[in-house]
Amino acid sequence: MTVAAHPATTPADPAGPARMAGPGGLAELYAEIQQFYARQMRLLDDGEAEAWAETFAEDGVFAANAHPEPFTGRAAIAAGARRATDDFAARGIRRRHWLGMLSLEPKDEHTVLVRSYAQVIETPRAGQPVLRASTGCADLLVRRDGRWLVLDRRIHRDDLG
Amino acid sequence: MTVAAHPATTPADPAGPARMAGPGGLAELYAEIQQFYARQMRLLDDGEAEAWAETFAEDGVFAANAHPEPFTGRAAIAAGARRATDDFAARGIRRRHWLGMLSLEPKDEHTVLVRSYAQVIETPRAGQPVLRASTGCADLLVRRDGRWLVLDRRIHRDDLG
Amino acid sequence: MTVAAHPATTPADPAGPARMAGPGGLAELYAEIQQFYARQMRLLDDGEAEAWAETFAEDGVFAANAHPEPFTGRAAIAAGARRATDDFAARGIRRRHWLGMLSLEPKDEHTVLVRSYAQVIETPRAGQPVLRASTGCADLLVRRDGRWLVLDRRIHRDDLG
Repeated sequence: MTVAAHPATTPADPAGPARMAGPGGLAELYAEIQQFYARQMRLLDDGEAEAWAETFAEDGVFAANAHPEPFTGRAAIAAGARRATDDFAARGIRRRHWLGMLSLEPKDEHTVLVRSYAQVIETPRAGQPVLRASTGCADLLVRRDGRWLVLDRRIHRDDLG
Repeated sequence: MTVAAHPATTPADPAGPARMAGPGGLAELYAEIQQFYARQMRLLDDGEAEAWAETFAEDGVFAANAHPEPFTGRAAIAAGARRATDDFAARGIRRRHWLGMLSLEPKDEHTVLVRSYAQVIETPRAGQPVLRASTGCADLLVRRDGRWLVLDRRIHRDDLG
Repeated sequence: MTVAAHPATTPADPAGPARMAGPGGLAELYAEIQQFYARQMRLLDDGEAEAWAETFAEDGVFAANAHPEPFTGRAAIAAGARRATDDFAARGIRRRHWLGMLSLEPKDEHTVLVRSYAQVIETPRAGQPVLRASTGCADLLVRRDGRWLVLDRRIHRDDLG
């Protein structure tokens, strides 16, 4: 997957990822991030587009090689997700976004670059599930007021080269 | 996924999930639960129906929207799994149950509600793997004598609406 | 999945896995291993065959029921991966290896047996993703100079019985 470098991804601490991961170490960070994604994806798959958009920073960006332009800001991200979820609901299709193969690069105690793989599975009512998309995802997450938020998401769908 | 609320899911401790997760924190709980599911699913996929049923509480329940009635108690759960595993073995089909996107809600130090996604992959001998089912899973896990057990499992297959 | 026993898998410490997992406990080990696999698979999927081979021990072994003979040693492992990645690149196919359902059995502080499931997803340019293979994987990992390396990998593709 080719994803342009995030602006905030220069290593910031010579003590390295373990220290940057915070007092809980890599394990605590891993658990928090996995929990974050599980809840985030469930919101989208349950059609809760606005609550899903709340997991992005107010000034967050969602860019994908499947879209001509990135969505910028929570309101735009929510509106885009709302259109998609309403469309799938109208067609009777249940979606599930699986994120896996997480690789974490902490930048400081409140910023982490997460590279991952994602599968999108669609199941029509009374039909067979279909693996619709295989993608790579690069997220810059920030912790604000104790909550992780997506500051910048870049999705690369494999079929689009 | 629509899963009726579990009876024991009322938040029980105002100190919140971190404290309820026990001395090891969220990370230790996450690792234990992931390990539990990896071993549990492998038992089923290896055809060890009775050993798999031992990962349920003696009074455990297995309910699924694909079955008209829940299985209640280890013996019934084991018998149901035995019939299914024997049938797949007779047809030369290898199954793998993937669980992912785990979201943990600790209720107390010995009880945790786990919501997850599951894929069922079937591979016939000399054939191509097929994604047979996409599902949501809600488990109420209890720790008894140091071991995690499923007290109540609810499976929602996406194609069944 | 049937995998012949690894020679070094006899339980070595009566204090059990928690102690053998090292000072960080199971959680820290789990996070390290997940991170290891995420990076390892990404190298292969990005076509970095030689860098991927560096994640094996110098004397590492890669055996699979899809190959008549195991690859032994980093150079042979790299050469095999190079041929495969070049072939997929020439055909315009993007691969992703998903590893999941990790079950860890620490042998000592520097050796762990990891059993897992793996999916291989292939996406042709402008085409639909295909679940090409469902497999079981058993890895004997060793920590040398602070880095995890694969000493012995055994892959069992489900369609090959």
